[in-house]
Amino acid sequence: MSFDQDTQPAGNKSPEQRLAKMGLTLPPVPSAVGAYEPWVRVGNIIYTSGQLPWIDGDLKYTGKMGAELSLQDGYEAFRLSALNGIAQLKSAVGELSRIKRIVRVEGTAHTTADFTEQPAALNGASDLINDVFGANGRHTRMIYSDPAMCLNCATLVVLWAEVAD
Amino acid sequence: MSFDQDTQPAGNKSPEQRLAKMGLTLPPVPSAVGAYEPWVRVGNIIYTSGQLPWIDGDLKYTGKMGAELSLQDGYEAFRLSALNGIAQLKSAVGELSRIKRIVRVEGTAHTTADFTEQPAALNGASDLINDVFGANGRHTRMIYSDPAMCLNCATLVVLWAEVAD
Amino acid sequence: MSFDQDTQPAGNKSPEQRLAKMGLTLPPVPSAVGAYEPWVRVGNIIYTSGQLPWIDGDLKYTGKMGAELSLQDGYEAFRLSALNGIAQLKSAVGELSRIKRIVRVEGTAHTTADFTEQPAALNGASDLINDVFGANGRHTRMIYSDPAMCLNCATLVVLWAEVAD
Ligand SMILES: [Ca+2]
Repeated sequence: MSFDQDTQPAGNKSPEQRLAKMGLTLPPVPSAVGAYEPWVRVGNIIYTSGQLPWIDGDLKYTGKMGAELSLQDGYEAFRLSALNGIAQLKSAVGELSRIKRIVRVEGTAHTTADFTEQPAALNGASDLINDVFGANGRHTRMIYSDPAMCLNCATLVVLWAEVAD
Repeated sequence: MSFDQDTQPAGNKSPEQRLAKMGLTLPPVPSAVGAYEPWVRVGNIIYTSGQLPWIDGDLKYTGKMGAELSLQDGYEAFRLSALNGIAQLKSAVGELSRIKRIVRVEGTAHTTADFTEQPAALNGASDLINDVFGANGRHTRMIYSDPAMCLNCATLVVLWAEVAD
Repeated sequence: MSFDQDTQPAGNKSPEQRLAKMGLTLPPVPSAVGAYEPWVRVGNIIYTSGQLPWIDGDLKYTGKMGAELSLQDGYEAFRLSALNGIAQLKSAVGELSRIKRIVRVEGTAHTTADFTEQPAALNGASDLINDVFGANGRHTRMIYSDPAMCLNCATLVVLWAEVAD
């Protein structure tokens, strides 16, 4: 686990300020690709649906890690899926500082049958979340690998977030 | 998201009445296929185990979408898996009107390596849930694609439901 | 579902005593393989991250069920992944008797495309949990099958546990 020195003590910057400092803009929240909701809140927990690596209405990363996509591509795809997930959380809570904890990151990697570097790829999501939320971003995670994925996307990410309320 | 006009304002019909109106009968609750429980309640949330497309003791849909199963077969298999999940929820709560919200649908599709229409297939589960529960059925979801599945089944569905009290 | 006669009425033995009676020692808690946490507690629920079949710093089971791994190997791999999960829970709660319920077991099996005995393999995790926790171990579960897995591991297990507090 590597946190920036200044995020360790929770920092003074808001998640939005950290995104801005990293030069990142939250994408407009994508619609659900089907008869479901992009997020649901139950009690103090918000669960998102699976987030694809969308940017400006385009699916930026398609294909499989181990074939047309390198590990670095997979890392970037997971990072972009997670950025879309953070955009969904912001649409749910307004200010990201209301998020007390990122509880879990679920990541599905589109891979060939001999790809074994899923953890390093999923760090694309984990590193972004740690950088944006600091200590509040310290999450569990589960990795899935699928040989086929919706719209041929490279990655799917679900975020679970506890809200301070 | 398309809801029937009359379910939009929560409707006056119970989920059981809506099932009847659709000509659907809940199957007898299948036993778990292993050393586990079909559902567990924690606080106000009920989680089911993975539900297969059982009907009258037969696994109605086996094989892979993209090969022996069409997209329409996959849609029907997800619908039947979800119907089994609703039967488990009813066994847990008695009256389905006690369900305040379907929180999440987890769907695993048995697919070939080049199948990309998972969202349209999983709509078989989502559409049924929306039709049966109306606004209370508005859920998040996560799709998984597996190249191999237990008993060669076509679909697995897990439901998470929030109970009113 | 088969419980030992003496675990049925909750028993007088603690989970740690049952482990000892079975000749099992909890492994040292493995570090997370990436930028995440091995477990997180939210309210009364502890969620672990995905647990691999580690023993003494070695990944004991690698490869695919249906190829180099038999069903029995898969059973043992799931058992060992679950033992690592129980070690994580103990690091979270101190005494395992504080666990009121194992809510869910998520198991991913590394398989060939024609393997169909996932439920029997995942019983390696379920049987251990039932033996260690007795009635408190009665859980739901979800099985995933992946054609590729991190570090070529045979199994991944996530545990959700409700704490008595
Ligand atoms: Ca999979």
